[in-house]
Amino acid sequence: MIDQIFNAATEAFLQYKNLPGNERADFLDKIADTLESNRSKIVPVAVKESNLPEGRINGELGRTVGQIKLFANMVREGSWLEATIDPGDPHREPLPKADIRRMLIPVGPVVVFGASNFPLAFSTAGGDTASALASGCPVIYKGHPAHPETSILVADCIHKAVLESNLPEGVFIHVEGGIDVGQALVQHPAAKAVAFTGSFNGGKALFDLASKREEPIPVYAEMGSVNPVFTFPEKLENELIPLAQAYVNSLTLGSGQFCTNPGLIFVPKEHAEEFETATAQALKDIAGSPMLHPGIAKSYYEAIAYYQTRNELKWIKVADPKHQINGSPALAQITAADWLADDVFQQEVFGAFAFMVVYDSPNELMEIAKKLHGQLTITVWGDIPELKQNAALINILEEKCGRLLFQGVPTGVEVGYAMQHGGPYPSTTDPRSTSVGSHAIKRFARPIAFQDMPEDLLPDALKNDNPLKIVRQVNGKFTVEKIN
Amino acid sequence: MIDQIFNAATEAFLQYKNLPGNERADFLDKIADTLESNRSKIVPVAVKESNLPEGRINGELGRTVGQIKLFANMVREGSWLEATIDPGDPHREPLPKADIRRMLIPVGPVVVFGASNFPLAFSTAGGDTASALASGCPVIYKGHPAHPETSILVADCIHKAVLESNLPEGVFIHVEGGIDVGQALVQHPAAKAVAFTGSFNGGKALFDLASKREEPIPVYAEMGSVNPVFTFPEKLENELIPLAQAYVNSLTLGSGQFCTNPGLIFVPKEHAEEFETATAQALKDIAGSPMLHPGIAKSYYEAIAYYQTRNELKWIKVADPKHQINGSPALAQITAADWLADDVFQQEVFGAFAFMVVYDSPNELMEIAKKLHGQLTITVWGDIPELKQNAALINILEEKCGRLLFQGVPTGVEVGYAMQHGGPYPSTTDPRSTSVGSHAIKRFARPIAFQDMPEDLLPDALKNDNPLKIVRQVNGKFTVEKIN
Repeated sequence: MIDQIFNAATEAFLQYKNLPGNERADFLDKIADTLESNRSKIVPVAVKESNLPEGRINGELGRTVGQIKLFANMVREGSWLEATIDPGDPHREPLPKADIRRMLIPVGPVVVFGASNFPLAFSTAGGDTASALASGCPVIYKGHPAHPETSILVADCIHKAVLESNLPEGVFIHVEGGIDVGQALVQHPAAKAVAFTGSFNGGKALFDLASKREEPIPVYAEMGSVNPVFTFPEKLENELIPLAQAYVNSLTLGSGQFCTNPGLIFVPKEHAEEFETATAQALKDIAGSPMLHPGIAKSYYEAIAYYQTRNELKWIKVADPKHQINGSPALAQITAADWLADDVFQQEVFGAFAFMVVYDSPNELMEIAKKLHGQLTITVWGDIPELKQNAALINILEEKCGRLLFQGVPTGVEVGYAMQHGGPYPSTTDPRSTSVGSHAIKRFARPIAFQDMPEDLLPDALKNDNPLKIVRQVNGKFTVEKIN
Repeated sequence: MIDQIFNAATEAFLQYKNLPGNERADFLDKIADTLESNRSKIVPVAVKESNLPEGRINGELGRTVGQIKLFANMVREGSWLEATIDPGDPHREPLPKADIRRMLIPVGPVVVFGASNFPLAFSTAGGDTASALASGCPVIYKGHPAHPETSILVADCIHKAVLESNLPEGVFIHVEGGIDVGQALVQHPAAKAVAFTGSFNGGKALFDLASKREEPIPVYAEMGSVNPVFTFPEKLENELIPLAQAYVNSLTLGSGQFCTNPGLIFVPKEHAEEFETATAQALKDIAGSPMLHPGIAKSYYEAIAYYQTRNELKWIKVADPKHQINGSPALAQITAADWLADDVFQQEVFGAFAFMVVYDSPNELMEIAKKLHGQLTITVWGDIPELKQNAALINILEEKCGRLLFQGVPTGVEVGYAMQHGGPYPSTTDPRSTSVGSHAIKRFARPIAFQDMPEDLLPDALKNDNPLKIVRQVNGKFTVEKIN
């Protein structure tokens, strides 16, 4: 069965990769429109399967549609191809100079795994699928067992768009099955890249499999992180109450089931008591909403039960496991010295649980920064003079994350051109990439150079008269001009 | 010792990464100038250690200097940073939009391994070192045992430039030692990327080590390939003699010791005899020049001795192992059917040895294309109508290489903006990258997004008034304009 899937995908690839950008964009728009017109069918099923509220799922469908349309617009426009042209010079001495033209081409069939916490935006027609299809790669999508019906409904929308666009069926193949099926997909010789969002263990296992293949392939696994928040005294002096409230809101949003959930906050000693009081107050009445599935709730409460055995912690709010499916939030205080002494205090607990780490001095913060694992995001709350005083700290924090925030909270990942959703290991397996935003398309492309290719045969992106009117680098300069 | 090296490199990194582009460019220029002013000292030593002729080494030094200056110019100009800005909008409904600004930052200390076949251009101050330093990464350079004195002379030039630029010593560290030292460098937790040019076994071993680290890191290993040449009948009808001569020249250049040496040529049956005669004639008087070192010559003759045991082959020219250090060229003919039957006929033999594969039909060519391993280059010699007829073949060949040539020969890799020197596995471990040309710098960088960063703190590349005057993507559009 796996061989058949990849035969179909490989055959489809050789046709699909040559589809002009505007037609590929039309196909993506058709997927988006089909999803939108099936909203009333998809939303209740996704709500039922994920326990997420209807408003959130409706918003997520909008985001999913928006992402697909962002990629459609990029592909229609075409500058993402990084067309680079060094025109030839037959009169160069001592040797004539060849004409060399470089652009990105799609890598081939991509295996995509969905995420339980985003049954739409990071699943069947989510960002990974959309960006792979946008780049010109067929997608073999492994449905997530937490939302099987949703996945099939969404896959049907994509199948419909494939059919109506007269594309080969192998452009998108929906596969159901267990871990063994996922592993077989990653190991198949015709797979050229893998995209995954989920746990560290899941992502790392796929990375290891892919690295051990006869032909190793890239795995873009977004595995989450604890998204530390650093707070400085002057800022807290003026804004402690609203910041504590913003922090708790971000921590408990959707029962903390976000990759960018801020599970770690560093607070200066002189404000610790006040911050503790404010967060305790803010957390007091939050019961937590149902988690995605019982297994996730079970892991959440088990992790908290473990930390309850640790003497280093003082509990500001204890989770209430009464309703096992609800992710009751929890917050524990620890000194920086104790936090530094054991890496277990920077492990991700998926859910609305955080460590409030009380620090004594800037020196301690530097030690913390150096010890910090790779993160999707780091947030720094300080007044400008404080930020400048802590330039050396921020210099190190840059090395530890993919996105560095100076206002607001890390949850709520904007889908745009400048977004970076990815970061140093172990937050992802490939910090050179992003899984959100327009640059995500480049994960599934690689450069090729055509040397002295006859004008007739050149792809439109590289033709002399620039029929796509894209931005190209010609002799090193960015331009939309034609080549003479 | 390894710990000390990485402590120095890591400390240097935190300073060097923040050096403004123009100062980093000045530093690179200083390396280039110091190399140039030590030409008379370096060249004779490199000639002695590599057995390569003085003219070649002189040219290679020029190329090395040129590469460094290309990167200096890029870094001085600054658009390579891919600055991308999505300005914020506090009035957006339902939620204000954060200001997000993305750019590339250097990854950290890079371990570089030199290549024996380019003692200058792919070694101590070669393209890998130059591009890593250009991106803002310190380099830990493992000297190649085939040219130890050359390596030290070149390293001294870099050390001098470091000193004169008032940079910390850890910006460039020259390390001598065996395979165990190389392995220890790749395994050190502070290493963030590896660049290598050399054999498949060497590159793959480093890739495996790096994948198994606690924090896996990218390995950019350029491991060579057989660089197939496809010829079509009409083209040969008109140009067989000059093409056969060009082929032999490329095959035997520098005793075939190039990554892009064309070790495989596909010739249509109807022209096989004439092509055989022409190549035999062209090869007749080529004795071959001394190979890089006795070990390489030994491997070359051993490989040929193995192929002499294979009955499928008809020898057009047999290597003459009389002078073991000279790479006496060899060419063996085989039918496409026999070639297809055993992968051993597409293994790289480092040196001036090739298979001339005689094909019967376009169908056979399609089978060959599908079976072909990943290559740095593929060359297609055909008239335009033939190329159009073979569009389906070329469509597959694109999937198998990093550079596709339609004129000339694959040896002679132009250093420019559009060059792609890299290709699908096993020619490299990362086909998303190039080790030659301006894009090589991106191997050692990763994106970071700054969210709501105060203007005062923003790097110059992302400031509102665009002080670097670089091309940036603002709200999706490429522009040099300021942000209002």
